[in-house]
Amino acid sequence: MAARTVKLAVIPGDGIGPEVVAEGLKVLSAVASRHDIAFDTTTYELGAKRWHATGETLPDTVEEELRGHEAIFLGAVGDPSVPSGVLERGLLLRLRFNFSHYVNLRPVRLYPGVTCPLADAAPEDVDMLVVREGTEGPYAGMGGVLRKGTPGEIATQDSVNTRFGVERVVRYAFEKAAARPRKKLTLVHKDNVLTFAGELWQRVVREVGADYPQVSVDYCHVDAATMFFVTQPQRFDVVVTDNLFGDIITDLGAAVAGGIGLAASGNINPENAFPSMFEPVHGSAPDIAGQSKADPTATVLSAAIMLDHLGLGAAARQVENAVADDLEARAKDGGDRSTTQIGDDLARRVAEQG
Amino acid sequence: MAARTVKLAVIPGDGIGPEVVAEGLKVLSAVASRHDIAFDTTTYELGAKRWHATGETLPDTVEEELRGHEAIFLGAVGDPSVPSGVLERGLLLRLRFNFSHYVNLRPVRLYPGVTCPLADAAPEDVDMLVVREGTEGPYAGMGGVLRKGTPGEIATQDSVNTRFGVERVVRYAFEKAAARPRKKLTLVHKDNVLTFAGELWQRVVREVGADYPQVSVDYCHVDAATMFFVTQPQRFDVVVTDNLFGDIITDLGAAVAGGIGLAASGNINPENAFPSMFEPVHGSAPDIAGQSKADPTATVLSAAIMLDHLGLGAAARQVENAVADDLEARAKDGGDRSTTQIGDDLARRVAEQG
Ligand SMILES: CC(C)[C@H](C(=O)O)[C@@H](O)C(=O)O
Ligand SMILES: CC(C)[C@H](C(=O)O)[C@@H](O)C(=O)O
Repeated sequence: MAARTVKLAVIPGDGIGPEVVAEGLKVLSAVASRHDIAFDTTTYELGAKRWHATGETLPDTVEEELRGHEAIFLGAVGDPSVPSGVLERGLLLRLRFNFSHYVNLRPVRLYPGVTCPLADAAPEDVDMLVVREGTEGPYAGMGGVLRKGTPGEIATQDSVNTRFGVERVVRYAFEKAAARPRKKLTLVHKDNVLTFAGELWQRVVREVGADYPQVSVDYCHVDAATMFFVTQPQRFDVVVTDNLFGDIITDLGAAVAGGIGLAASGNINPENAFPSMFEPVHGSAPDIAGQSKADPTATVLSAAIMLDHLGLGAAARQVENAVADDLEARAKDGGDRSTTQIGDDLARRVAEQG
Repeated sequence: MAARTVKLAVIPGDGIGPEVVAEGLKVLSAVASRHDIAFDTTTYELGAKRWHATGETLPDTVEEELRGHEAIFLGAVGDPSVPSGVLERGLLLRLRFNFSHYVNLRPVRLYPGVTCPLADAAPEDVDMLVVREGTEGPYAGMGGVLRKGTPGEIATQDSVNTRFGVERVVRYAFEKAAARPRKKLTLVHKDNVLTFAGELWQRVVREVGADYPQVSVDYCHVDAATMFFVTQPQRFDVVVTDNLFGDIITDLGAAVAGGIGLAASGNINPENAFPSMFEPVHGSAPDIAGQSKADPTATVLSAAIMLDHLGLGAAARQVENAVADDLEARAKDGGDRSTTQIGDDLARRVAEQG
């Protein structure tokens, strides 16, 4: 029996989700056997197929079962046959909100060997950690519609920002910044226009920052931030931002760091009151589903974030090193590999590592 | 006496604003003399200095005077000495809102010779027109703060989207798309999360689109759009989007099209019920103010958008051609010129054009 058994819920989801999750699990099992860990997995069929069959997105009983796990490993959910928002709000955001995933952790890092769309960027220029708030802001789902379908129609969408919600994610971001060599934290917001929310974010950063005198604090409007991601990515170390701005800049960050096939994320409840959830930033990509064309690297890197969260740092480093080696090898031979082949190679590299 | 006299209000503003506006006016006067136009200008001192001296951002009497002009030519407002939001909300947004500038028109175009931060982009890949809504959305200023300064504090920020407001800007965007060679319109939103507002935008695009069968319609989530701006900018022709998403993607667009020194905009009331306002996308850049280091090209291109709006298309084309020639020449000699020298060169090129 392994020294540590992790109860892991797996949600393969739709499109390429099951394909990339299979490779993620393959790499996890390679690393587990080297570290005397076991993953006790239970698979949950959630997503478009289930919704079509039963109308369910996330039954209460399933939510309750998921709660009994240490972590959730998710591929991707969504399909054009499902109305926009149904699975997003009914499954993905419901999990993030109900399990208090107030940290949406998204590293933006250009690995050596990876082709960057920016003409002048080198790996040392792109190495940031975006700490996106995950449980409030414009994602709260508040707002409504009045006089629908008439010329007098009005639709509102309300961003909700609480002292409690902002403070906990800002404190987490300061902790991360304090532990990194550059010790820099940038708040990204739009406080000159969104004055109510912006003032709260600014004030909380100032107040929490008093506890971290070693961290230098910067502020950048979200519009300017998108510009700097492209022209001066080295400006950023740790970035803390709200749910919507974080969504936007991390997709841009993924593009800058070599594409959505490499972008990993963790939806984290730092107190472990609920299971955290780990998923690639990319979606279900129905256009390439079932063809073994998807790059499982983003999912594998999300598994590394999960290992870190589970306190298995050495295993996480091994997975990351395997990815780094694989990306450098890719740059040399440029080989076209299937999803499965990339997963096999990563598992082998993990197994072979010194 | 000139055949046409345009009553123009000029707001030089703060920082580099007065420097770039001076060059814009220089180019306007060069083009005016070739087209038998005269600009009858009145300068308004608004911005940080006035606020410090009098506490005023935009007195009602000044707003009333501005209303009596055909157009407003603005440099930039803002200074770190003024609390964030005061001049933005009290002056810039007040003008956009009160003068019903529901179209915020922002071309994103890579001119030949201009250095693009993207490794693989050629001028033909980057040629879009962003039609940003200018009078509602999260910019409405609605929301508030409850229990400020306590652990139970909550700050809200409400996005307001009306059928009236969305329809008029969407219709304008379809008109623009129909007049362009590619005849493509992309709605950028986040309808899978901002479901109330997103559904309204989607429905209006569908309904108005029925009047434009020649225009092909596409949809892109704002997060994915930022990615595609960097990896596949050729995907976009005309983009229509809300006030906040438009703010974000046009700064990114400016970066992709060679930098904020070239990005022009018009805040337009298409019905001419109020004067429209033309301004560079960049801010007041206090760090380089007074050093004749700013590139006045964005302001000059904004003047070209103004000429178009005033029905002076031939003059607009002349200004644009002068800019295009200047940018190609720049690529060859790479000369470092002052703000004034660039303005002189542009005015000369306008005067010399066949
Ligand atoms: C699918 C969608 C709801 C989600 C989000 O907006 O958060 C995705 O874009 C992401 O970034 O994880
Ligand atoms: C200064 C600011 C209020 C403004 C905006 O957000 O619209 C600016 O960023 C712009 O894009 O014109």
